[in-house]
Order: sequence, then C-alpha cells, then structure tokens
Amino acid sequence: MTVAATLSPQICAADGALAKELFDALRERTSDGVGISRDSYGHRETIGLDIIDKKARQLGLQTERDAGANLVVTLPGREPDLPFIACGSHLDSVPQGGNFDGAAGVIAGLAVLARLKETNFNPRRSLKLFGLRGEESARFGKAYMGSSALFGRLTPEDLSNKDPATGRTLAECMTNVGVDVARVSRGEPLLDTKTVGAWIELHIEQGPVLLARELPVGIVTGIRGNVRHRAVTCIGEAGHSGAVPRWLRHDAVFAAADLITHIDRHWRTLLERGRDVVVTTGIFGTDPNEHAIARIPGSVQFSIDIRSQSKETLEAFYDLFLSECAMIGEERGVKFEFDRRIDSAPATMDPEWIGRLNRASRRLGLLAEEMPSGAGHDAAVFANAGIPSAMVFVRNENGSHNPNEAMTIEDFLAGVSVMRSAIEEALQ
Amino acid sequence: MTVAATLSPQICAADGALAKELFDALRERTSDGVGISRDSYGHRETIGLDIIDKKARQLGLQTERDAGANLVVTLPGREPDLPFIACGSHLDSVPQGGNFDGAAGVIAGLAVLARLKETNFNPRRSLKLFGLRGEESARFGKAYMGSSALFGRLTPEDLSNKDPATGRTLAECMTNVGVDVARVSRGEPLLDTKTVGAWIELHIEQGPVLLARELPVGIVTGIRGNVRHRAVTCIGEAGHSGAVPRWLRHDAVFAAADLITHIDRHWRTLLERGRDVVVTTGIFGTDPNEHAIARIPGSVQFSIDIRSQSKETLEAFYDLFLSECAMIGEERGVKFEFDRRIDSAPATMDPEWIGRLNRASRRLGLLAEEMPSGAGHDAAVFANAGIPSAMVFVRNENGSHNPNEAMTIEDFLAGVSVMRSAIEEALQ
Repeated sequence: MTVAATLSPQICAADGALAKELFDALRERTSDGVGISRDSYGHRETIGLDIIDKKARQLGLQTERDAGANLVVTLPGREPDLPFIACGSHLDSVPQGGNFDGAAGVIAGLAVLARLKETNFNPRRSLKLFGLRGEESARFGKAYMGSSALFGRLTPEDLSNKDPATGRTLAECMTNVGVDVARVSRGEPLLDTKTVGAWIELHIEQGPVLLARELPVGIVTGIRGNVRHRAVTCIGEAGHSGAVPRWLRHDAVFAAADLITHIDRHWRTLLERGRDVVVTTGIFGTDPNEHAIARIPGSVQFSIDIRSQSKETLEAFYDLFLSECAMIGEERGVKFEFDRRIDSAPATMDPEWIGRLNRASRRLGLLAEEMPSGAGHDAAVFANAGIPSAMVFVRNENGSHNPNEAMTIEDFLAGVSVMRSAIEEALQ
Repeated sequence: MTVAATLSPQICAADGALAKELFDALRERTSDGVGISRDSYGHRETIGLDIIDKKARQLGLQTERDAGANLVVTLPGREPDLPFIACGSHLDSVPQGGNFDGAAGVIAGLAVLARLKETNFNPRRSLKLFGLRGEESARFGKAYMGSSALFGRLTPEDLSNKDPATGRTLAECMTNVGVDVARVSRGEPLLDTKTVGAWIELHIEQGPVLLARELPVGIVTGIRGNVRHRAVTCIGEAGHSGAVPRWLRHDAVFAAADLITHIDRHWRTLLERGRDVVVTTGIFGTDPNEHAIARIPGSVQFSIDIRSQSKETLEAFYDLFLSECAMIGEERGVKFEFDRRIDSAPATMDPEWIGRLNRASRRLGLLAEEMPSGAGHDAAVFANAGIPSAMVFVRNENGSHNPNEAMTIEDFLAGVSVMRSAIEEALQ
C-alpha cells in the first residue's frame, strides 16, 4: 500500500486558492456588518450551502440536497453499495459569529473531494461531503439539529422551539428550506446508519491548546459530555457584618467559596490521575436586591458545568460535588438547593480513525496533539448513532462564536492534508 | 461605700411602666405603617424628642435643647462645675426600622434619672441624659451626625449631603429643627469635652451573641472599626467552559473563591490567637452582561469589609488580604484591582467603666458577657473625642434596622439596672 502524502506546494496552492475563494464568498455574502450570521434553517445558511454547491458542480462533482435539506456532494466509488465515507461539518453560524466555525470543515471536505476527483482517484467506496444545517443552538435553543434529524432524533418538542426574533418554529423554518418535516416529526431516520462507514469532521479548535502547544493540528480523542445545573442556591443566614462573630455565621459566599475550592482540589487530583475533566461556574452572584457591604450574604446562586470525555468520570465528579455540598452544608450550617440536572452524553472518537490521522500526520512530518473536544459537534451525534467518527482540529485564536476567530490558511491547509491523507489511506 | 443594688420588683415595676408608656408612645406616633421612621433631622425625630422631653418634665427633671438641637435632661449635682456624667443614645431610626435601635438607650437613661430624682439621690456631679439626633446614615449617607456635630467634627461636605428623597441638604434639615448650623459649619464644638466625665450608652445588640449565650446583658469592650472596599475586581480571562483545560485557565471565580478560602483560614487562625476580627464579602458577582453557563468567567467583583476593635489587627489583616491577592494573582494568572479604601477607626471602651459595669452585674446577680460591638455607635464618637465611654448591650432578636427587632422588657430592665447601679457607684 502506498499513500501519496506530502505537504506539496502544488497541492497546497490549489487547496489554498479554493479555500480563499470560498471563505471570501461566504464572508461577503453572509456578513451581518459586525460578524457572520448564517442563521440555522434560514436564508443566509442556504446562501452558504449554495456557494459550496455551485463550486462543487464547477469541479465536476455530483451534488444534491437530502431530505434534511443538507448539501450532499458525492465522489462515487467503484462499489457504491459499500458503506461510504462521509466528511464535512455545518454551514450555519451564531449571530455575529465567525466565518470558520463550521464552514472550515465543509470547505476542507470539498478540497479533499476536489483533489481526489482531479487526480482521477477511483476508490471502491464512495466519499461524500455533507454541508449540514442547524448545528448552532443560538436560534432555536437546541444544538445539532441537522445531524439529529438525519438519525431521527429530533422530538416534537424540539420542532416546536421558536426563534425568539421571528416567533417562527423550527418546524416552519425547516419546511421553508425544504426539509421533509413529516419524516422528521415521525422520528424517521433520513440516513441509514448502515450506509455510512465513517464520519470525518475538521473544525477550528475553540480553545487555546494548539496555540499553547505551538502545533497547527489536533486529533480529537473524544467529545466531552457534560452534567450541568443552571442554578445551585446556597442558603445561609443574613446578618450584620460587624455584629455576628464567626461561630454564629452562616455566610453563603464563604460556604460557596469553600465548595469551589474543594471542587478545584478534587479536579487537580483527578487530572494528576490522568482523568479528563473540566469544571466551570460561569454565573455566580449574591442577590442584587439584598446587596450591602455590611450584610452577611444570606444566599448566593451559581451555575455548575462539569465536562468529561468519560461518562464514568462525569458521574464520579458529580458525586464528589454533591458530597462536598452536603459536608460543607453541615459544617457551615448552610443548605444547597439544586435546579434540574441537565445531561449531555460524551462521545468517543473511533480508535482506528485516530490511528489513521496520527499516521497521516507523521507521513506529512507534522506533530499533531491528541486532545479532547470540549465543545460539542455534529461528530458526537454521528458517533452516538454508532458511526465510527473522527475529528481534526485546526489551531485558532480568540475562540469561536465571535468575529475574531483567527485561523491561518497555512494551518487550515495542514489540517486538510492530514484529513485527506487519512481518507486516502482508508479508501485504498 | 454602699450601693443600693438589686433587681427589686418595685423598681422594675416603675421602670417597666415608664418604658412601656414611652415605647408605646414612640411606636404610635412615629410608625410609618410598616415599621418605625424617625427621620434623622426630620419631623418624626423631633416628635420622638418631644415625647421624652415632656415625660422628663412631668418627672420633675430639667430639660433643654442644646445647640445641636438634641434633647438634654439634667439631674443637677451638688457641684455643677465638675465634669458631668452623660448617658443616652439617639432617637432617629432608619426608614421602616425598629422601635428599639437608639430609643432604648434614651428611655434607659430617663429611667436612671427618674429613679435617682425620685429617691432624692443628691450626687456631687450632675447626670445628664442626651437624646441625640442623626445617628443613622440612611438619610444623608453619613452616620453619627448628632454626636459628631457636638465635637465640631462635621465637614462642609457632610453638611451638603442631600436626602435623596427630598433633595434637601443636611444643613437645611439641621436648620429647620433648630441646630446652630453656623457654629457646626465652622467646626466649632457645641460641647466642651472637658465638661464631660463619661458617656454611658445602652443599646440593643444587633447580632445574635447574647441570644446564643442565653444572657440578657452584654458589656461592650470596644467598637469595631473597619477597612472596606466597595469593589475589588478579579480579572482573569473568559473562555469556553469545555475547550480550555485547567492549565490554560484564568478563571476569575475560582481565583476569588481561593482568595476567600485563604482569608477564612487566616481569620480562624487569628481568632484562635485571641484577636478580634470579622470579615464579610456582602456583594459578590460575575458580570450579568457576560453570563453564560458555558463561559469561564473573565471577571468577578466583590466587596470586602474587615472589622476589628484593634487598629493593629485591622492593618495586619488588610495586609494579609493584599498579599493573598498578590499570591493568588501570580499563581492563577489573574489580577486584583481595588477601588478606594474606606476606613473607620475602632474605639476602645473605658476599662474603669467596664469594671463598674461588671461589678454592677455581679451585685445584681447577673452574668454579663463582655463583647465587642460590631456596629458603630455614638459612643465611638465620644470615646474618640477623649471621653471615657461605655456601652451596655441588651439581648435582641432579628438584628436591627427592621421592624422585627425583638427585645423583651425583662431584658431591657436588666440592662437599665446594670447601668443605673454602675452610675450610682460612680456618682457616690
């Protein structure tokens, strides 16, 4: 088995020209003045799909829209009945978002298909690019709608979610762009998982790890699931800041600070033992109606977001959290109250594909960082539908969901090369 | 030297009848429907003074209003040129406050004078009761205005403070109730400190210590001063809660929680070493404009209020606070920014008077708790003007500055008896 693999100047030039053309066209036609707005199941998302569709046809590739109104571009294999390899990502964005979150994966996929088509590569299996809709939760409060619809996983409740800006339901907006909502609402899969051999998704990294490591490309080991509470309330007892001595206090802020410090210590311990976990309290505050410098805070409310690639670690850490709440509650005479627990399952990336991506990196002379994805992706939906899935991360500054996303074209081309080389190996 | 001292049923009955009559009259005539509102330098504060004034004259005592428009009731001594012993408290209240904060000390003083008058007690020194105005900061943002004016300690800035509800300045409101504002604004003392031998103030406890100790009366050792910041800002770096690993985080809430936990530990250590200190962060919160469960908080703001009877402990604890901010800042890659430091000096109660009050308690068969006052009082102004000062606390439920203050008449009578007995001892 030989694999053509090199970061050749010619290929990079061709990929670079294609990428520049498509990123520019997307930016120009889906800008909102501040950033990029390709509204999920909306007009500018469709513009995005059309731009890629048109270019794919110019490159001699077959294109169609599936029953979910997603763009599907096909490089047919010699044995089209074999499970195909799928790649791609989503084309929608958050309002005033960036141009790369989602679109980079679609353009990367098109570059892979275009190059294989150009070289008359004639694989056994087909290779398909999906330009998915509706990955972002910004519009309808629900993420991964496009991929969930493919596997019959949208509920009637999801379909009745409304865009607060227009008052339109997800079902209405899906109908408007051509989704077969009748099938979706019956929970009927639009894509037979048995026909899909793999899902490969390139995406910008939304954190700072590749920047810190000074590496252009990461290989994702898994997508972190999470356990969350929007609001945990610590209830103590208000009092005069000068007149209540320590032994008679039930200070809600001191108790919650104690809790976070314990959680932080457990976190460090688990990391030292090689577990994957991150913990955040993004919202934390005393009650503004009771604010006074000279008042012992009687209550404080905070959110908690625990993420891990491992379901077991998630549960173990959540148990630690609850037992710390109980212990600190007892020690300090405060009470912790919890709103509804919200769960999102982790997803494991396919070890064989992780191996292929690692080999591809080595062939190309690139060091790639194996890393978890902290944010969710369509790849998690594919993986949890039983399809071997993999993700390539590309270094990116300033996070995502904002106009300052900053991926260099060189890093993007390195990511495309790794992905292409791994797919070529699999298609041999 | 003999001292008539007993919690005699007759005396208690007389004190109790007087107290009931005056508390009832005050409640009836200065209620706002929800609680008590005796506005500082306002109409209902004057009603309060008039009620006490009228009763004092009925009891055969001399009354007058001083240049600060405070009520002064005198039991003249045989040698009126000797420094007199002063007692009393303030008659104003916060809006929708309670009936006891302040007024209890004035009524207690009147009960002491009334009993001495009734028994034809004829001391060398005079005994004076002050019904002070303007102790509460609720109306003009400045506390202890009445006692500060007595010692020439009100600034032109203080005098120009406005009541937000009416737009009237403190100077205007003082003029309206008869204060000699010309003298006050020149910083001229209205009371010569050399003429005052002592200041004795009874007050409800505003904390839960006497309740917890199951004791009716406390003897105050000092009034805690404080060092405060309204707003300390911890600045970290925002980021995606899933995508940033622990080693790349600069989480403002985790850093501030760490700070509070360290502060709490230092606090415990100082208490174990017998130092007096309390610490509170009454206001604590992430920025509502940036609230998201999935966002590492980039900043958090909190107040800090450190109180101690000892200036040295205050400074030492503040230094600990600053050095913890620096260390945690370095360790976690965050920065702490501070607004203006606000200081309030502690006041020490007079050891001789503490001794007298202790002896009086023992004579009466009462256990009294020696304790600091965490809240500020006019007694601190008298003490810091160089006048030997002392305070008696009376057990009280539900704190103060609210309509639910709950002092029993029995506890009040115990406090009056202790105060009377100590004053009798001093006047012998």
